[in-house]
Amino acid sequence: MSRYSAPLADLRFALFDVLDVEKTYQRLPGCEAATRDLIDAVLEEAAKFTEQVLAPLNQSGDAEGCAFDAATHSVRTPKGFKDAFAKYVDGGWIGLTANEKFGGQGLPETIGAALKEMIDAANLSWGNYPMLSHGASSALEHHGEDWQREVFLKPLVAGTWTGTMCLTEPHCGTDLGLLKTKAEPAADGSWRISGTKIFITAGEHDFVDNILHLVLARLPDAPAGVKGISLFIVPKFKVGKDGKVRERNTLACGSLEHKMGIKGSATCVMNFDGAEGWLVGQPNKGLAAMFTMMNTARLAVGLQGLGLTERAYQNSLAYARERLQMRALSGAKFPDKPADPLIVHPDVRRMLLTQKAFAEGGRLLGLYAYVQEDLAKHSPDAAERERAEALVSFLTPIVKGLLTETAIQCTYDALQIFGGHGYIVEHGMEQLARDARITTLYEGTTQIQAIDLLGRKIMQLQGVGLKHFLAEVGAFCTDHGKDAALAEFVGPLATAAKAWGELTLELGKRATANPDEMGAAAWDYLFYSGYIALAYFWTRSVAAADSSSQSSDFRDAKRHTARFYFARILPRIHTHAAAMKSGAGNLLDMPDIQFG
Amino acid sequence: MSRYSAPLADLRFALFDVLDVEKTYQRLPGCEAATRDLIDAVLEEAAKFTEQVLAPLNQSGDAEGCAFDAATHSVRTPKGFKDAFAKYVDGGWIGLTANEKFGGQGLPETIGAALKEMIDAANLSWGNYPMLSHGASSALEHHGEDWQREVFLKPLVAGTWTGTMCLTEPHCGTDLGLLKTKAEPAADGSWRISGTKIFITAGEHDFVDNILHLVLARLPDAPAGVKGISLFIVPKFKVGKDGKVRERNTLACGSLEHKMGIKGSATCVMNFDGAEGWLVGQPNKGLAAMFTMMNTARLAVGLQGLGLTERAYQNSLAYARERLQMRALSGAKFPDKPADPLIVHPDVRRMLLTQKAFAEGGRLLGLYAYVQEDLAKHSPDAAERERAEALVSFLTPIVKGLLTETAIQCTYDALQIFGGHGYIVEHGMEQLARDARITTLYEGTTQIQAIDLLGRKIMQLQGVGLKHFLAEVGAFCTDHGKDAALAEFVGPLATAAKAWGELTLELGKRATANPDEMGAAAWDYLFYSGYIALAYFWTRSVAAADSSSQSSDFRDAKRHTARFYFARILPRIHTHAAAMKSGAGNLLDMPDIQFG
Repeated sequence: MSRYSAPLADLRFALFDVLDVEKTYQRLPGCEAATRDLIDAVLEEAAKFTEQVLAPLNQSGDAEGCAFDAATHSVRTPKGFKDAFAKYVDGGWIGLTANEKFGGQGLPETIGAALKEMIDAANLSWGNYPMLSHGASSALEHHGEDWQREVFLKPLVAGTWTGTMCLTEPHCGTDLGLLKTKAEPAADGSWRISGTKIFITAGEHDFVDNILHLVLARLPDAPAGVKGISLFIVPKFKVGKDGKVRERNTLACGSLEHKMGIKGSATCVMNFDGAEGWLVGQPNKGLAAMFTMMNTARLAVGLQGLGLTERAYQNSLAYARERLQMRALSGAKFPDKPADPLIVHPDVRRMLLTQKAFAEGGRLLGLYAYVQEDLAKHSPDAAERERAEALVSFLTPIVKGLLTETAIQCTYDALQIFGGHGYIVEHGMEQLARDARITTLYEGTTQIQAIDLLGRKIMQLQGVGLKHFLAEVGAFCTDHGKDAALAEFVGPLATAAKAWGELTLELGKRATANPDEMGAAAWDYLFYSGYIALAYFWTRSVAAADSSSQSSDFRDAKRHTARFYFARILPRIHTHAAAMKSGAGNLLDMPDIQFG
Repeated sequence: MSRYSAPLADLRFALFDVLDVEKTYQRLPGCEAATRDLIDAVLEEAAKFTEQVLAPLNQSGDAEGCAFDAATHSVRTPKGFKDAFAKYVDGGWIGLTANEKFGGQGLPETIGAALKEMIDAANLSWGNYPMLSHGASSALEHHGEDWQREVFLKPLVAGTWTGTMCLTEPHCGTDLGLLKTKAEPAADGSWRISGTKIFITAGEHDFVDNILHLVLARLPDAPAGVKGISLFIVPKFKVGKDGKVRERNTLACGSLEHKMGIKGSATCVMNFDGAEGWLVGQPNKGLAAMFTMMNTARLAVGLQGLGLTERAYQNSLAYARERLQMRALSGAKFPDKPADPLIVHPDVRRMLLTQKAFAEGGRLLGLYAYVQEDLAKHSPDAAERERAEALVSFLTPIVKGLLTETAIQCTYDALQIFGGHGYIVEHGMEQLARDARITTLYEGTTQIQAIDLLGRKIMQLQGVGLKHFLAEVGAFCTDHGKDAALAEFVGPLATAAKAWGELTLELGKRATANPDEMGAAAWDYLFYSGYIALAYFWTRSVAAADSSSQSSDFRDAKRHTARFYFARILPRIHTHAAAMKSGAGNLLDMPDIQFG
């Protein structure tokens, strides 16, 4: 049995002691309700819901999976999933951060992120259903017409219907320019959508009566490539402009994929056969609308990685304390027991500290990005909004790429601590590893995040987000330059940040001369950037803990973990720097034929 | 569908061009039959058997798994597994390297290793059945009495019976000192074995009529801990000293484990209830006999990692050539196609080259270790035998640790190249990743390999194996010191080897003062050592390819892959060195309570 308790103490520390969100929200119009008391109450209730309702369904959902009935094209979700969704809706969770105009509670995104981490830690498969609704809501809010918001967005926010994102087709995943799904105009202003979409999470299920598919398709006269893509809303049951639900639309789930993990998530092949749909936004401008959904989803998938890391840590820590095996090398620590617990062994501690460092450091990185989202949305100061937008745009590929890749490392470590028992289904650790494996693939692979970071956010946008981030790090280092208690971190952080800036300039020059240099450096650059960003958040954590009213154990734990991070994780940047400096030749010079 | 073709060209290159095994075997008494022609013929036939018989059963075996019948305590293996074993026996494969005295063909271990890599690549789950027989055979050959070899070993070599290793109990895996299984003497000189063993691979199955369990247990008066462990042979059906098979023994499979992968391997809970067994070797000296099996098995599990890496590479390379997605950053490479194949993208090439570098470099490392086994067994020169024994003892944890950990990395990369499709069962990539996950756990976790390497092979044995290895590397660098074509590799290799020696001395000093320093450095030391060892084998590969009659594409591919390895993999040693130099404090100073 795999356990889970929401990490409330560390969430509070991150939100209040480090990021000081209460102060921020008090000055943001529309966010004033988010006082510390309110946030505390939300976190407490979210912990109860995720621990008591979702977590107990995680292993059973994996074992049971989703079932497809070919006769009715229907999908049965695992036992308990539907009820849990009803509770999620009844508890008001689904509209927590949605705009009050459409029935939401309008709380800051950062609070939604804290909830989402808990949901994903408790039950990643289940969490995918509401996540897809959020993505669809976001697209409709920003790009839909008024009647579409009224008719489609409100039921999504209310949780009476759910949404999907229908992008991928059998021959095109990353390369949306290749997509073939067609949209033909109908006399009444609607469209007829035809084509096959694959990997559609929550494409069909039994939670609610209607499902709204946000579908990318091409108009008859559309230009080739990504400039000819439009976005449509295509409901499972047709809905008129009057909001009345009519007959079944001509679309259906064709089959469910058999996957390595997230078996409780229905991953559907969706067939559209002249289905009635409505254009969202302008013709041929679907990619922009899609990116609204995608960016929301990318940050959210980063939180999925974080949630899995937290749960992996909790379980492997408990096992390391319980399981007795061998004696400490320096002599028995528990001579009255037949052997010492695993936690005495240095390499077990290395694996535990790796998880702790990524869970707590990653939490800050993720929440910091969501604070920027809130600032970008609500700040009355245009310069502050612009800075926050640049920061969140820059940090999104890092949050998505780093927190999912480290989730794979951390679920590996957690399983390894269990030894052979980690490989056995009952302990639940192998499920975490299987579930984590999707997170570096969907909503853009790590490779796509890396190119988004170096190719777009650094090269195309002149690194404006990085400049803001490095300025903040620089100011922090200057502010704490004479703080003896922080010197062991501030010095190496300042050195790393300086190297980051210099390496970025060097890469920029080389990539301008030869675009392959960007592609050859991007993956290493993502990790390199992410590890330095975490070094900043770990240093801030120590500073914040020291000046907080946290217990001395809590403060010491932050300092010890930061020391571990700087000594044993941060040095990974040297390997990544060496790889980047080696240039593109060692990847590109070998003719294809010589690969074998 | 996952594909597999035995990598005959690279196996031949490794055996003949780099390691020159024919010359070695011609001078080793008992190995003269292993001419190039004979080895070639064996490799060809092994390729046919593994590609045509085993590989087609890999995905179906995973989907079907093993079935346990609680009424009869019997296990049904996946469809086709039993027939494949019969063909393996009929083809003479099972006794390929076994001693001729007991019915084997007496071929060198290195040839058996080449066969084993192919078996594991084709079907890891199936490969576990014969592997366990080999381990049991090895223990009986070295520690059994004459009548035991006659009665038990010969049927194992003939493949009419199979064997197991029964070590682990619910409360003891690594820590065998805790084991509780008991052995009571019987009047006829046999013993009555009682206890429960878990994780017993091939503990029950339907391949053959009798299964011989090699069981660790305690005599009534045994000292506590590992000094009170004895080894017994406990057959499923009782066998007298006369070799006659009698009634069913009082032991049975209690259940099958539900595992993340290797689902075609029967992983059994075995209950012994006063079962008749025979002592193998001396009382209380079971650990030495167990290590005979274990060391054989550790090298073999290294080959499992290698096989999975090879298969992952083949499949992701084929996919990278077929799948069209996006254009090369430097402009379309296949303008007549709707998009370029994945292989044009630099980071896809990084992932392919990582796999190629570990597959081909790992193959040499593994085969080199087996050549040392053959030298240790057959050399007429005592000094050569001693050197070879020291080398294989030193290299065993590196082969096991590095080739399994890199298999996890490489099956990760291969799956990642497939994008979302990699997560779908049908493509077979997620099975490789799940199957690979066991290899860093069984036969000693990576942590145990690391402690065996640094604690035992370096500290306790004064690093004699490392000294031989570094002397060989040093001689190679001196010999090729003026070879301009090799300078780009020989220079960095010599530098790394020098640093390896120095760091080892430094760690030795620190660990002598404080044993925790050994435990805190061991994991990093294993990778650090392994990556430098591979740098040596990659340099030898380039040298051997250049002076061989291989095609220019083959030679160039070795050089390009070596360049990639030195530029983008070898720099990992800097991160590991930094971690080791940081000392044990950052792992051990944090009080247990502060972990959370």
